[in-house]
Amino acid sequence: MSKKIVTITRQYASGGREIGMKLAEKIGAEFCDKKLLEEAAKSSGIHQSHFEENDEKRTSSFLYLLSTTYGQSGVPFDDTLFFAQLNAIQKIASQQSCVIIGRCADYALRDFENVAHILISAPEEWRVKRAVEVYGIEEKHAKDYVKRIDKQRIAYYNYYTDKRWGVPQNYHLCVDSSALGIDGTVNLLKTFLDEFYS
Amino acid sequence: MSKKIVTITRQYASGGREIGMKLAEKIGAEFCDKKLLEEAAKSSGIHQSHFEENDEKRTSSFLYLLSTTYGQSGVPFDDTLFFAQLNAIQKIASQQSCVIIGRCADYALRDFENVAHILISAPEEWRVKRAVEVYGIEEKHAKDYVKRIDKQRIAYYNYYTDKRWGVPQNYHLCVDSSALGIDGTVNLLKTFLDEFYS
Repeated sequence: MSKKIVTITRQYASGGREIGMKLAEKIGAEFCDKKLLEEAAKSSGIHQSHFEENDEKRTSSFLYLLSTTYGQSGVPFDDTLFFAQLNAIQKIASQQSCVIIGRCADYALRDFENVAHILISAPEEWRVKRAVEVYGIEEKHAKDYVKRIDKQRIAYYNYYTDKRWGVPQNYHLCVDSSALGIDGTVNLLKTFLDEFYS
Repeated sequence: MSKKIVTITRQYASGGREIGMKLAEKIGAEFCDKKLLEEAAKSSGIHQSHFEENDEKRTSSFLYLLSTTYGQSGVPFDDTLFFAQLNAIQKIASQQSCVIIGRCADYALRDFENVAHILISAPEEWRVKRAVEVYGIEEKHAKDYVKRIDKQRIAYYNYYTDKRWGVPQNYHLCVDSSALGIDGTVNLLKTFLDEFYS
């Protein structure tokens, strides 16, 4: 049986992470979220805290750019982190079935064959409610927070890849997770993958 | 049992029409493609040929604008056609289960409840091949033709609605029809709708 490799791009609080976790279990694949950061830290020798601090966000602050640590190669530190993560994604995907969440994984695996690319989105009001209920974000700040995390991820993706975030033509399937709920979406994706890998 | 109303927005030669036709049969709904134009012509008293000539396209030609026929109300003729079509879509959807192809149907039914909005896309090379094989477009012109029809439809949608064409957040499900093929996509959509309307 061939490996099953799935990338999940998600809007914040759309349930993409939970969907990915349940889907990985259903299809017998490794769930890769923070695990990617561990693998990138291990391979690169850079402390994991740096990957966590810069996870799927970039800063355009001029002061930050001035103070950016350059390695011996002259590559800015945040680019070094990105490339280490790219390598980690490619290493994991070449070894085993996996469901990879975010981190430009669809771009990292663009030259891999038989990878299923999924986007999970949901209406803003549904995600704001979920941010409060599931992630414990304070209600009065939840809407701004949801918007900000989305913007960070989109800016990160658009900066590091040659594609635009969230264009449906970049994915095999885009699902509004509010339509069927978390478990319903997992079941639909399982149906899709059974056929995709048949 | 409640009505099942499905809108399908599609890229040219992605198979959206064929998928919609087969899906309509599977869920016991009326398939509405050119039928919309008949209904719009009947209700408005405008000859059907005008709807066919202006189907999902608009012109920005200055000469066309100068020569545009204005009705008694002062509404440009192409806007009159659009509104007649909008009315036809709303009339059909209020009467019966239906699968409606293109024509800004997702926008026309934005205030209707329990409508499933689907987008069908596919990689350009897949659609170009299909344009030649299924629609008989001359091979040397097929790529340009596919691009042009897409551009026409996108311009039409973006002009007449307050949304942007092809933003995944506007749809419950976006499917790349090349991933599972026409019949595989129909089956996936059937699975989705069974759960959506359960």
